[in-house]
Amino acid sequence: MFDKFNEECGIFGIYGSKDASINTTLGLHALQHRGQETAGIVVMDSETQTHNFHFADGLVADNFTSTKVVKKLIGDIAIGHVRYSTAGKKTSRNYQPIIAELEQGIIALAHNGNLTNAKKLRTQLIKRGAIFQSTMDSEVIVHLIALSNKKNLPDKVIDAVNQIEGAFSLLVIHKNGIIALRDSYGVRPLSIATQGDSIVVASETCAFDIIGAKFLRDIKAGEMVVIEDNKIESLMPFANKPSKFCIFEFVYFARPDSVLEGKNVYQMRKNIGIELAKEIQCDADIVVAVPDSGVPSAIGFAMQSKIPFEQGIIRNHYVGRTFIEPTDKIRHFGVKLKHNANNAVIKGKKVVLIDDSIVRGTTSKKIVQLIRDAGAKEITMLIASPPTISPCFYGVDTPDKKDLIASHLSTQQICQMIGADRLFYLSIDGLYRAINQTKRDNLNPQFCDACFTDQYPINLTDLTN
Amino acid sequence: MFDKFNEECGIFGIYGSKDASINTTLGLHALQHRGQETAGIVVMDSETQTHNFHFADGLVADNFTSTKVVKKLIGDIAIGHVRYSTAGKKTSRNYQPIIAELEQGIIALAHNGNLTNAKKLRTQLIKRGAIFQSTMDSEVIVHLIALSNKKNLPDKVIDAVNQIEGAFSLLVIHKNGIIALRDSYGVRPLSIATQGDSIVVASETCAFDIIGAKFLRDIKAGEMVVIEDNKIESLMPFANKPSKFCIFEFVYFARPDSVLEGKNVYQMRKNIGIELAKEIQCDADIVVAVPDSGVPSAIGFAMQSKIPFEQGIIRNHYVGRTFIEPTDKIRHFGVKLKHNANNAVIKGKKVVLIDDSIVRGTTSKKIVQLIRDAGAKEITMLIASPPTISPCFYGVDTPDKKDLIASHLSTQQICQMIGADRLFYLSIDGLYRAINQTKRDNLNPQFCDACFTDQYPINLTDLTN
Amino acid sequence: MFDKFNEECGIFGIYGSKDASINTTLGLHALQHRGQETAGIVVMDSETQTHNFHFADGLVADNFTSTKVVKKLIGDIAIGHVRYSTAGKKTSRNYQPIIAELEQGIIALAHNGNLTNAKKLRTQLIKRGAIFQSTMDSEVIVHLIALSNKKNLPDKVIDAVNQIEGAFSLLVIHKNGIIALRDSYGVRPLSIATQGDSIVVASETCAFDIIGAKFLRDIKAGEMVVIEDNKIESLMPFANKPSKFCIFEFVYFARPDSVLEGKNVYQMRKNIGIELAKEIQCDADIVVAVPDSGVPSAIGFAMQSKIPFEQGIIRNHYVGRTFIEPTDKIRHFGVKLKHNANNAVIKGKKVVLIDDSIVRGTTSKKIVQLIRDAGAKEITMLIASPPTISPCFYGVDTPDKKDLIASHLSTQQICQMIGADRLFYLSIDGLYRAINQTKRDNLNPQFCDACFTDQYPINLTDLTN
Amino acid sequence: MFDKFNEECGIFGIYGSKDASINTTLGLHALQHRGQETAGIVVMDSETQTHNFHFADGLVADNFTSTKVVKKLIGDIAIGHVRYSTAGKKTSRNYQPIIAELEQGIIALAHNGNLTNAKKLRTQLIKRGAIFQSTMDSEVIVHLIALSNKKNLPDKVIDAVNQIEGAFSLLVIHKNGIIALRDSYGVRPLSIATQGDSIVVASETCAFDIIGAKFLRDIKAGEMVVIEDNKIESLMPFANKPSKFCIFEFVYFARPDSVLEGKNVYQMRKNIGIELAKEIQCDADIVVAVPDSGVPSAIGFAMQSKIPFEQGIIRNHYVGRTFIEPTDKIRHFGVKLKHNANNAVIKGKKVVLIDDSIVRGTTSKKIVQLIRDAGAKEITMLIASPPTISPCFYGVDTPDKKDLIASHLSTQQICQMIGADRLFYLSIDGLYRAINQTKRDNLNPQFCDACFTDQYPINLTDLTN
Repeated sequence: MFDKFNEECGIFGIYGSKDASINTTLGLHALQHRGQETAGIVVMDSETQTHNFHFADGLVADNFTSTKVVKKLIGDIAIGHVRYSTAGKKTSRNYQPIIAELEQGIIALAHNGNLTNAKKLRTQLIKRGAIFQSTMDSEVIVHLIALSNKKNLPDKVIDAVNQIEGAFSLLVIHKNGIIALRDSYGVRPLSIATQGDSIVVASETCAFDIIGAKFLRDIKAGEMVVIEDNKIESLMPFANKPSKFCIFEFVYFARPDSVLEGKNVYQMRKNIGIELAKEIQCDADIVVAVPDSGVPSAIGFAMQSKIPFEQGIIRNHYVGRTFIEPTDKIRHFGVKLKHNANNAVIKGKKVVLIDDSIVRGTTSKKIVQLIRDAGAKEITMLIASPPTISPCFYGVDTPDKKDLIASHLSTQQICQMIGADRLFYLSIDGLYRAINQTKRDNLNPQFCDACFTDQYPINLTDLTN
Repeated sequence: MFDKFNEECGIFGIYGSKDASINTTLGLHALQHRGQETAGIVVMDSETQTHNFHFADGLVADNFTSTKVVKKLIGDIAIGHVRYSTAGKKTSRNYQPIIAELEQGIIALAHNGNLTNAKKLRTQLIKRGAIFQSTMDSEVIVHLIALSNKKNLPDKVIDAVNQIEGAFSLLVIHKNGIIALRDSYGVRPLSIATQGDSIVVASETCAFDIIGAKFLRDIKAGEMVVIEDNKIESLMPFANKPSKFCIFEFVYFARPDSVLEGKNVYQMRKNIGIELAKEIQCDADIVVAVPDSGVPSAIGFAMQSKIPFEQGIIRNHYVGRTFIEPTDKIRHFGVKLKHNANNAVIKGKKVVLIDDSIVRGTTSKKIVQLIRDAGAKEITMLIASPPTISPCFYGVDTPDKKDLIASHLSTQQICQMIGADRLFYLSIDGLYRAINQTKRDNLNPQFCDACFTDQYPINLTDLTN
Repeated sequence: MFDKFNEECGIFGIYGSKDASINTTLGLHALQHRGQETAGIVVMDSETQTHNFHFADGLVADNFTSTKVVKKLIGDIAIGHVRYSTAGKKTSRNYQPIIAELEQGIIALAHNGNLTNAKKLRTQLIKRGAIFQSTMDSEVIVHLIALSNKKNLPDKVIDAVNQIEGAFSLLVIHKNGIIALRDSYGVRPLSIATQGDSIVVASETCAFDIIGAKFLRDIKAGEMVVIEDNKIESLMPFANKPSKFCIFEFVYFARPDSVLEGKNVYQMRKNIGIELAKEIQCDADIVVAVPDSGVPSAIGFAMQSKIPFEQGIIRNHYVGRTFIEPTDKIRHFGVKLKHNANNAVIKGKKVVLIDDSIVRGTTSKKIVQLIRDAGAKEITMLIASPPTISPCFYGVDTPDKKDLIASHLSTQQICQMIGADRLFYLSIDGLYRAINQTKRDNLNPQFCDACFTDQYPINLTDLTN
Repeated sequence: MFDKFNEECGIFGIYGSKDASINTTLGLHALQHRGQETAGIVVMDSETQTHNFHFADGLVADNFTSTKVVKKLIGDIAIGHVRYSTAGKKTSRNYQPIIAELEQGIIALAHNGNLTNAKKLRTQLIKRGAIFQSTMDSEVIVHLIALSNKKNLPDKVIDAVNQIEGAFSLLVIHKNGIIALRDSYGVRPLSIATQGDSIVVASETCAFDIIGAKFLRDIKAGEMVVIEDNKIESLMPFANKPSKFCIFEFVYFARPDSVLEGKNVYQMRKNIGIELAKEIQCDADIVVAVPDSGVPSAIGFAMQSKIPFEQGIIRNHYVGRTFIEPTDKIRHFGVKLKHNANNAVIKGKKVVLIDDSIVRGTTSKKIVQLIRDAGAKEITMLIASPPTISPCFYGVDTPDKKDLIASHLSTQQICQMIGADRLFYLSIDGLYRAINQTKRDNLNPQFCDACFTDQYPINLTDLTN
């Protein structure tokens, strides 16, 4: 219903834990903001050399905590996956981790990211007689592993990864351990931690916190970590490339309490608010965040500008599952089902309204109207990122370019369309400054910022063929 | 799972609307914080003189927005009810509004509050041959109305209400209109608004906002409003008593964007934070709220104390329905399923932690531990209300007195038990000051504050017999 | 989907059994043919003086056999009820047994039959202030019991029953026992049995067989049996009337393995076939039953006529629940979803087709077509009862008189409408002969046969006022 | 719960029908007796060249008749499958038809039968890098098709089939048509029909009847039929072998109204009863069938022996889905949940009891006890087939040899174990005579009768390696 970029996946793995699947359930729960449509866990019992799995549509908390599921998922090694949706259509077969039986035994793969040559590879594989059970690009990797004529699994995985392009953090579970890796550009996050003698990997550090695991380090761009025999082996088997971590993780995707690439997400967002206050002079009475993503920037902006931060919008926490498909008469109420203006706070005030981004502009328009109806004297809309002008092909669900309002309208026009009195975006250099950089290195940008700049660091093979 | 006082009910009614039930669905959705266990709507079609209804366990958003339900609930007059739970055990028969067929036709009743002589009346009624279909105290009122030998419905209602004691805001729907009333003490809120030609009543004004209704006024303590023939008639048929509005509505129950008794709830809570800062001098680095109820007080405290407000605790919004009954191993994780400390913000800091109240102390202990584990140097816990020492008998779900930690432990002892370095409660006069009073009038308190003072303004007949 | 008279209810009770509710579940399962829409069990634990209950839509086997339900239904006395539907509209409140709290404690009532003055009584009761929780006529009895000013429960029940008219077999459970009774005409069946030291009552003896209970005797018309203190007390407190047992129980409702009024149902139906063969001379090749109700009569007919009985129609046992509300395109297939002609057996044959009755004629028409399409040379349709010309007001779900095809069409016309070559009904005297009578006593018929004769033995108060 | 051999699958296909999926739903409903655990339909729209599918656990009637499913399954070519269970464990991935994307487009395969070299082939395929999505032997065929280097689909299918061993009737759907084939021995049935201009294939002719299709002919053993371009092309591409149709289809599996190999199943079963009467002289009062499978043989036996056929056992049609997993206390009631003796018919009689087969003997023992308890004077048990001494490896779910009571006990011993007074099996030659043969040709048996003779006509490769 809401008009945001959506992270497509979160992944989690644990090795050497007698509660492997419960820890994975908790870890996925902490990563739930990265995908709410489906969840899956595959668990291996290294003693009995057996595997088990559970997949479900919907939330981890609703589908993996029953005694029945917990009892089924016995084992000491586990990986899990939460997913927003996929490039292909939604079908009951699009679950991860993807399970496959190799000659050496069962493996399963969990993928965060998106391949940019999956279509090409899929066509080749089908021509060779491979049978796909899903429409997910990730299944290509599984087939490449299965078809590799290398002897052992790590070499098969390297063989497969060397054929794929795009953005990917991967977990591969097998009967004796987990293989974890990031693409050479390190677009999607993946970190490693320990929980007692267990070894844990996860998309974000907030998944370590919930199970009391101790953060060790990020897995490096282009690194492959082999977790087996109670130890962690690090390999660098992939092409060496400049790091291109996704800058939008800091703007919106990641949870504020996570630490990515050594940076606390909440602090980065507060910095963004501070940079906004430096770039834009406002004569306003109060600072109001669009909850919850706008809050850290609003706090930062308020600190820097000395304009007081107020809860001018109250969020309804009981939005429910089925409001997603309501009757038209109820859909019409749109944003009011989730947000209400705190009229007493807004009335007669000059309001600075802070949101993380504008995608299509439809929600922003309704939010501005809400504040207007509450009696605001003046509304300055501040966006905690530059205009989003280009879609993502590296694992984020974004509309087509034509549906990104900033791709074809000026800031002035967007301001008019959403009904604000003034509208400002953070500059691209301001964003880089907030993330502890002096400025954007235009020749070799420190992050992947294609959605703001239209400069794609990794080949878009399927698109250009 | 969480250790709070729980509001037991929210009520909503609308007269003269072609979308009566959709408006009621939206209104109840806005009142969902007052009760999440069951919901019900009864609708009357004044033209065909027929009625319809729908009851469900769970959220309004999940159970009343389907085309099937919307199509069933045809009519121009409707009332609805959300409920947390009841004094009696949970059974499938405890739904409101309670429907009854009188000689004059179908009526239905929705009740927010609690009767203090329901047991006595129930015994008398059963002796007379009345058959109860539920264990709800509210059903007593319906029987008293049905058995009244007054001629018309308003007189029957007055007759019934004159026999009951306790706290109650009531809605009675009939084929031609709605009767709305509050007990003589006005313990529970009830307000009236207009939406075009329609007339709306609701527990809180946030339910008016969602449907764009214009707030008219509060229904007065002891007032009965008869909505019929497109007009609002006001009667004062009940005993004249001093107003005793529930002070805890300002502390925790009501939504911050509501205006109760002429006061915006968010402002009152910010005031509470300001009063806290005046009462307690803190040498701290950051102010952290226990989300979401502690946020307004934390903002007020930060403003007054000049200590910066930070998001030190991040809330997981995907807690789900079934985490309510998880396996033991998952329940063990307790508060971490819902909250995570923002370690990077907390680490090495002297933290002021603000929560609205402490009930049993179990959650507070876990929250303090969470902040401690995140590396806080010092934790000062501030409670935005006085110690809760006595249970409520006027419509709020509270533990027995013995389970209220402040009823038998000193503040010093509680501080030790929850593991904080320092613990302060707001004084009772501080609370009154925050709500725009000079101080508490100890001879005739301006509000019902029995949970803080053990002084019950209304007879506890069932308890004392 | 199928065009039959439908029995409305079956009732079962057991006293003094440590597995009271499991026995009741099994007993209701055996009575499931008497009603498939809802089921309910109320159980009393005489030791703890507590009660419990479970209600469900659908089959007993699907809703009462889970560990969860079995665990809940603890106690040594239980009654249960299965229901087809009620005169009122289907709502979630129309479950039996109906529970009520009297001054003396909880009681519950299960009713098979239909009251003919319920509307009149209901109006009077509502005028007195009684609140009805359902639209079931049976609830009237519960209110009359509750309002009786007799001292003890048996007297209250007698008091109540003396005010009602119609057909009823009743069970009333209380904390110490069960009261079982039949109306003065004995229209609906009710029998008593023992299972070890336990005492059992049920609508039909097939419910005794499943739990290995030993049939004792039928409860007599006008008899009230008080089961308490481990003994059975028999009273005859009601008006003495001529017995009018429902003759249609023998024709269609009852299970063939039951013994009602001392007569095995299967034998009666075989007798009907024999009588048909005596009344009608057929030159045919094979006898085919419309399964399953036509089978016993067809066997009897085949024996008497020496024409071989063949399985000319095969029944599909997997008809499922949701075929009840299919899309139009599937509904169109009608009878073929359940029945198929055994073409190889039918082709080129003169067929005698036997069914128990014709209600609207719609299904008969499709069955005849089925046999015709299978290549029958000639179809003689025999009906194992006289024409059904009048609706039942004594507890059976029948269409309005105008929808009973035989109420306004001659046998000749019906034959033409259903497409048979010849059509014969059993004569009314033939039916009486089959049930071991010489002939119908037209001055004082031995059974209630109102559906065949339009002569109603019990007042139709609600209808005539 | 019941002790029978279970048919594993039924298949259905239709080409050139605007209601392809509705016809398939009806056809599968008619074949439901061949498998009740899962059902699936794949439909192709030849115009848009798109496909769609729906899979479900449970009955066709409960899962494929909703508007939602019907709307989804748009197309003019469809195949469907019902399944009892598979050799592998039950998992959510074991649905048929199995879908695969070839270079030429989507295909799907439905299989009735069982491969005897599937394990061997699967190991080889995994070694080559094939990824299996299920544990079904049938998936091997799909991989062999996908990996074939033949050019067009019919040749690929021939290539694949030439590598598999065992019993199989197969349907392969593709965007332009259906390929249907039977193994060289013709173990499992498959017939062809027309419905207007549409072409239909199905396991049994009863599936043609329900949609009004006109039977054309059986597909021959070793024949492959290519349905495309509105015509039927017949090929004989597979090894020429002697026909070995499964004799147990006549004994138990097939529906009595089907015609298999030119023989009406009901007539064969009646013949079996006649042969039984010729082989065994009985001095008995009544003939009783174990319903429903024993009925045709009992009718035949009664005709030949002149002993009257009676409904001595009444079947409860409301057994429900969840009685399959009841609490122990209810499971204990075993056969009584489904069958009851018709005591009045049995009491004091010498009974001939006819059942189709004895597998483990557990159910037979309970049935005999039921009849005994009903007061039978003498019980002669007749089995409408020879002793079942060997498991099936050709697509039927049978217990291990050790669990087949007749594999290690004499008829005398079995008689004692089940508690009958006398027990007779039909002779193997008697069975052949019933199916219109002079006698069994012991050198080259006319049917596969391995379950009775331990002579397996097709290699058991996986078993012997």
